[in-house]
Amino acid sequence: MRTTAQNAELALLLEVAGTPKPGNVDREHEYEDLRFEHFLAGAVGARPGFERAAAGDPIGDAFEHAVEGMAQQRGGNTQFGALLVVTPLVATAASGALSREHASAVVAETTVDDAAGFYRAFEHVDVAVDDPPDGMEPLDVRRGAEVVPTLRDRGLTLADVMERSADADDVAAEWTDGFGRVFDAADRIESASGPVADRAATVFLELLAARPDTFVSTRQDRETALEVQRRAQAVLDGEDDVDEFAADLVERDINPGTTADLIAGGLFVALERGLSV
Amino acid sequence: MRTTAQNAELALLLEVAGTPKPGNVDREHEYEDLRFEHFLAGAVGARPGFERAAAGDPIGDAFEHAVEGMAQQRGGNTQFGALLVVTPLVATAASGALSREHASAVVAETTVDDAAGFYRAFEHVDVAVDDPPDGMEPLDVRRGAEVVPTLRDRGLTLADVMERSADADDVAAEWTDGFGRVFDAADRIESASGPVADRAATVFLELLAARPDTFVSTRQDRETALEVQRRAQAVLDGEDDVDEFAADLVERDINPGTTADLIAGGLFVALERGLSV
Repeated sequence: MRTTAQNAELALLLEVAGTPKPGNVDREHEYEDLRFEHFLAGAVGARPGFERAAAGDPIGDAFEHAVEGMAQQRGGNTQFGALLVVTPLVATAASGALSREHASAVVAETTVDDAAGFYRAFEHVDVAVDDPPDGMEPLDVRRGAEVVPTLRDRGLTLADVMERSADADDVAAEWTDGFGRVFDAADRIESASGPVADRAATVFLELLAARPDTFVSTRQDRETALEVQRRAQAVLDGEDDVDEFAADLVERDINPGTTADLIAGGLFVALERGLSV
Repeated sequence: MRTTAQNAELALLLEVAGTPKPGNVDREHEYEDLRFEHFLAGAVGARPGFERAAAGDPIGDAFEHAVEGMAQQRGGNTQFGALLVVTPLVATAASGALSREHASAVVAETTVDDAAGFYRAFEHVDVAVDDPPDGMEPLDVRRGAEVVPTLRDRGLTLADVMERSADADDVAAEWTDGFGRVFDAADRIESASGPVADRAATVFLELLAARPDTFVSTRQDRETALEVQRRAQAVLDGEDDVDEFAADLVERDINPGTTADLIAGGLFVALERGLSV
């Protein structure tokens, strides 16, 4: 039997293996400076962080350690968002039922120290983020560990930080919503058939068609995210070709990374619930 | 920095990612019942065994544990041979210089208990093997742990067992030769340029052209192995097309698995010596 940390690592590997996942690196698509092998090394590097979360270490520390290990490759930010989805779920599985209720409880129990770990994680890797909203400049993640005194002054926990980001970032939104889209992805992956990586690619398209990807909104703009959403629906409706869609997004450097992060979470939940590979 | 066990796992992942590796599963080629994702799960499952080898546990136990973990997926034997190459090299790296001399010393120090672990490993997974040569029936690996009393009666160490298999199996031959072809593969991977998985695929072809693959000799016959060797050379000479070669081998279910095992070893050595991904 795989351990919880092994399932977390395998979830990252299966996520990147699923193809085609338009706009993202997968085993048949990569970018010159962001390659499939960077994701393999990222997943291998992240596991000690997952092991900490599984052992009951604080989530902020475990997340920072996972990010630090992930960053030991030349591609840069491969799986920051996926780690932010999966790490609290590892802690959830390790401390009780892997349910939305328990995941919400785990989030609610996060501390200011966990928030500090989250900010420190940004020092290990460049993450594409937008300017913070008005009034949030003191909490700009790009400032990394500099923000920690502010967190302490204001008594902000990691749950508080996620709540403040939930409007702009659908990974943060999962934290405030008991990981509803992640558990939905797990249900879809479980009820599909065929190779697991293929199922993950299909569910990726379904999630992409359901909501604009916030990573695309951040790196490009909301209009582009809406266009990607419409086109994903057109592929599902048989009105557009998935390979052309994929080629076009790669060409334009549009990566629906948030949706991929949710799929990694869904794969982890499905593996923990006994999905066979 | 990745640990030695992490490098061992990453070597398995990079090996299977390299494409095209004619006849073997890679990220663009798979079989209906032996898929890319089975190799991902196999690599993740093997790591605890590598961790035992890195911690100084006996090689036979570490190998058996790696195989047991590898087998926790539906594809069957994904990386048995690769584990047999990499596990002693993990032990070598963990106990001194990662050199041919020290690897030979590690092999020479193996015990009857290590041989017993090797035989027990065959109980975790079906491995394609030939009938044993005349007089070797009592040591047929297909008998698994049943053979252990015979090993003890005869005082056979794992090094002795490998020596007896070296004529028919080029993984065993590495054990008796200080892993010469593995270290050569590492040198070639290091001196090439470009993505690591691409280098591994190129060196795979070079090794395949240099010697008939013993896994092909076992599953098909020596004539087929020689044909594959000639054709690999033709691809390197620009006289044959690598994709056609790959498609033909997949069609005929010819898998030059021993050569892939040596590449996994070469990747491990290169990663340990500092190759960046």
